[in-house]
Amino acid sequence: MMSELKINLSDNRKDKPASDKLGFGKYFTDHMFIMDYTDENGWHDARIVPYGPIALDPSAMVLHYGQEVFEGMKAYRTPQEEIVMFRPDMNLQRLNNSCERMSMPQVDTQFVLEAIAKLVEIDQEWIPDGEENALYIRPFMIATEPALGVRASKEYKFMVILSPVGAYYPEGIHPVSIYVEQQFVRAVRGGTGEVKTSGNYASGIKAQEVAKTKGFSQVLWLDGKEHKYIEEVGSMNVFFKVNGEIITPALTGSILPGVTRDSVITLLQDWGYPVIERVISVEELFEASAQGLLEEAFGTGTAAVISPIGSLSLGDLNIEISGGKTGELSQRLYDTITALQRGQLEDSHNWAFKVK
Amino acid sequence: MMSELKINLSDNRKDKPASDKLGFGKYFTDHMFIMDYTDENGWHDARIVPYGPIALDPSAMVLHYGQEVFEGMKAYRTPQEEIVMFRPDMNLQRLNNSCERMSMPQVDTQFVLEAIAKLVEIDQEWIPDGEENALYIRPFMIATEPALGVRASKEYKFMVILSPVGAYYPEGIHPVSIYVEQQFVRAVRGGTGEVKTSGNYASGIKAQEVAKTKGFSQVLWLDGKEHKYIEEVGSMNVFFKVNGEIITPALTGSILPGVTRDSVITLLQDWGYPVIERVISVEELFEASAQGLLEEAFGTGTAAVISPIGSLSLGDLNIEISGGKTGELSQRLYDTITALQRGQLEDSHNWAFKVK
Repeated sequence: MMSELKINLSDNRKDKPASDKLGFGKYFTDHMFIMDYTDENGWHDARIVPYGPIALDPSAMVLHYGQEVFEGMKAYRTPQEEIVMFRPDMNLQRLNNSCERMSMPQVDTQFVLEAIAKLVEIDQEWIPDGEENALYIRPFMIATEPALGVRASKEYKFMVILSPVGAYYPEGIHPVSIYVEQQFVRAVRGGTGEVKTSGNYASGIKAQEVAKTKGFSQVLWLDGKEHKYIEEVGSMNVFFKVNGEIITPALTGSILPGVTRDSVITLLQDWGYPVIERVISVEELFEASAQGLLEEAFGTGTAAVISPIGSLSLGDLNIEISGGKTGELSQRLYDTITALQRGQLEDSHNWAFKVK
Repeated sequence: MMSELKINLSDNRKDKPASDKLGFGKYFTDHMFIMDYTDENGWHDARIVPYGPIALDPSAMVLHYGQEVFEGMKAYRTPQEEIVMFRPDMNLQRLNNSCERMSMPQVDTQFVLEAIAKLVEIDQEWIPDGEENALYIRPFMIATEPALGVRASKEYKFMVILSPVGAYYPEGIHPVSIYVEQQFVRAVRGGTGEVKTSGNYASGIKAQEVAKTKGFSQVLWLDGKEHKYIEEVGSMNVFFKVNGEIITPALTGSILPGVTRDSVITLLQDWGYPVIERVISVEELFEASAQGLLEEAFGTGTAAVISPIGSLSLGDLNIEISGGKTGELSQRLYDTITALQRGQLEDSHNWAFKVK
C-alpha cells in the first residue's frame, strides 16, 4: 500500500466568500487531494495540490460509460476550536461498497481518512462561521482510461474537493411540499440505487424539474417494480411518524443506506421511540393521514440533515402533515444532529472524528 | 443559431495504427469537434481543433451527477472512393431524445451533421482499409458547470471524436455464448434505459464481469419489474427466429431503440419475413427451443452490427442455437448491412449519407 502523501501548497490563496452568502457547492477551497490508479501499479502518487482543473482525454471512460462513485461529508469547528468530521468511517466504507458494485478499485479507507484530515487541516480557514454552515467534503472516483468499449476501466482518479456551504435549503429547516412521482423511477432492485454513483442522480433530474414546474420542492420516489412502495424523497432517505411509531423504508436493494438515516434511527432508539424498517406503501400512508395518524414526515441526508415534509400530493389528492409546520420530532432530530456534528453535545456514540 | 464553424488544423499529425491491429476505440484521430453551451448564450464557439485533453473543473457536474449522453456511428470508404455514413439522421435524432430525458440542451442536428462530415473529411486518411474496419464516430455531451447540487447543469460541452476501429469482436462475426442475468438489472420503465446515457452502461459492467468469469461472452437482460421478459443482450438489441417468424422485444420504455435494430426490421420486411415486436418471456424462448422451434438468435448494434448467439444458459439449463453456428439469416443480415454501409449494394432506403 501507499504510505507517502506529497503536499504542494498553493502560492495563490483565493478570497473567501461571505459566510452568509455561501449557497451549496458554489465555492471551492485552495487545495484538493488526488491519487491515481492503474491495474499494474494500484493506487499511487497520492498528493495534495492547489485546487484547479484536471486534464482528461475526451475518450476518458467516465465521460462515456459513467463509472463513477462519490461521497458527501461535512467538517465543523467545535466551540473548543477543534475541527471534527461526522462519522467519516461510514462514508468511506460505503464508498468501497459503491466501488464494488461499479467494478471499480477500492481504497484504503484509513489512508484516505488521514489524507482528508490533512486536506481539511490545510484549508481549515475555509470552514465557515455560522450555525447552518459547514465545510462540505466531496470524495469521488472517476474512470480515466482513454478508450471506448463497455467494460471496466483500467485507470482511475480518486479526488477530494472541499466546499464551504450554507444550508442546503436557503430558508434553513422548513417544511417542503412533495409530490408522489408516478411516471419516473429512480432505481430498481438489481440496479445501482443502493450505491452512490452518478447515474442514479442523472436519472432523477427530469422528475425534479417537472416537480418544480408544478410548484413542488421535490418528488417522493416509489419502487420501480410495482410503483407502490415508498423508497426515497429527492436524494434523501425518508421517515414517517405514524401513531407514535417511526417507520422508514427497509433497505431492500434500491435505497441508499444513508449515514444520516443510520444516525436518526440510533437517536430515536436512544429516545425510546419504536423504529420499524419495513416496506411502506403510499396507499397505507394516505390512509394513515385520513385517519389522523400521520404525525410527521421528513427526509434525511448529509446536505440538508433533516428536511420536514409539510405536504404530500398524489395526483389530485393533497395531504398536509404536521399542520404544514416542522414537526416536534423533526426539529429535535435536526437540533440534536447538528449539535452533535458541531461538538456541542456529548458524543456518546463516538461519531465525531477529530481532524486536529 | 450558430452558423460559423472555426477550424484549427493540427501541425502534428500522429502515426496511424496498422489496419489489422486496430481493436475497438483504442486510437483517436488528429482532430475533434467541440462546442460549448451556457444557459445565457446557447450553443456557441463551434470548432474543429487538434485532438487532445480537455480541462474540466473537478466539480464539473458530469463527474458527480452523470448528466451525459452519447451516440455511436461509423463512416466508410466506398468502392467509388466516396465517404459515407450510415443513417446519421437517426442517431442525431436519438441524441436529442436522450437530451430531453436527461434535461440537457438539444442540438441543431443539421449543423452537427455538417460539422461531423467536415471532421470526417479532415481526418479521412484515418478511415482504415479492410472489410471489417470503419471509422467510428462518437458524439457526446457532458455537463460542465462547476457546482455541486443535484439539478440540471447550466453549462455543457458537446464533442465529437473519431476512432479507426476493427471488428468489435476480434474474431469477427461468430456465435457467442450468453447467459440469462437473473440478479442484476439494466433498466426499468420510468428510468433511462431507452436513451443513450452513461449510467445505463456503468450499471451493466458488473454483470458483464461476472458473466466473463463464468465463461460467457455477455448477458441477456431481463425486465426490471418481473425478471421475466427479454430486453437486450449486452449493449445490443436482440432478435429471435422462432418457427420461421422473427420476434424482437417491443420498445416498452426500458429498451434502446437501436438504429441497427430498425435497419434489421426493415430489411427483414423487404425480404418477406414476418417481424413481430412484442414482449417475449425467457420461459417462452426456452420452450420454443425444447420444441425445436428456436432457429436463430442474434444481437444488433452499431459496434458489432450482428452478433449471433450460439448458446444461451439459464441457471443450469443450457441450450444451443443454430447448432452453435452463425445462422443463415444472421449471416445474410450481416453481409447485407455491412455491404450497404460500404456502398457495395443499391441504397434503396436512402440510408447512406455522403460526406464528400
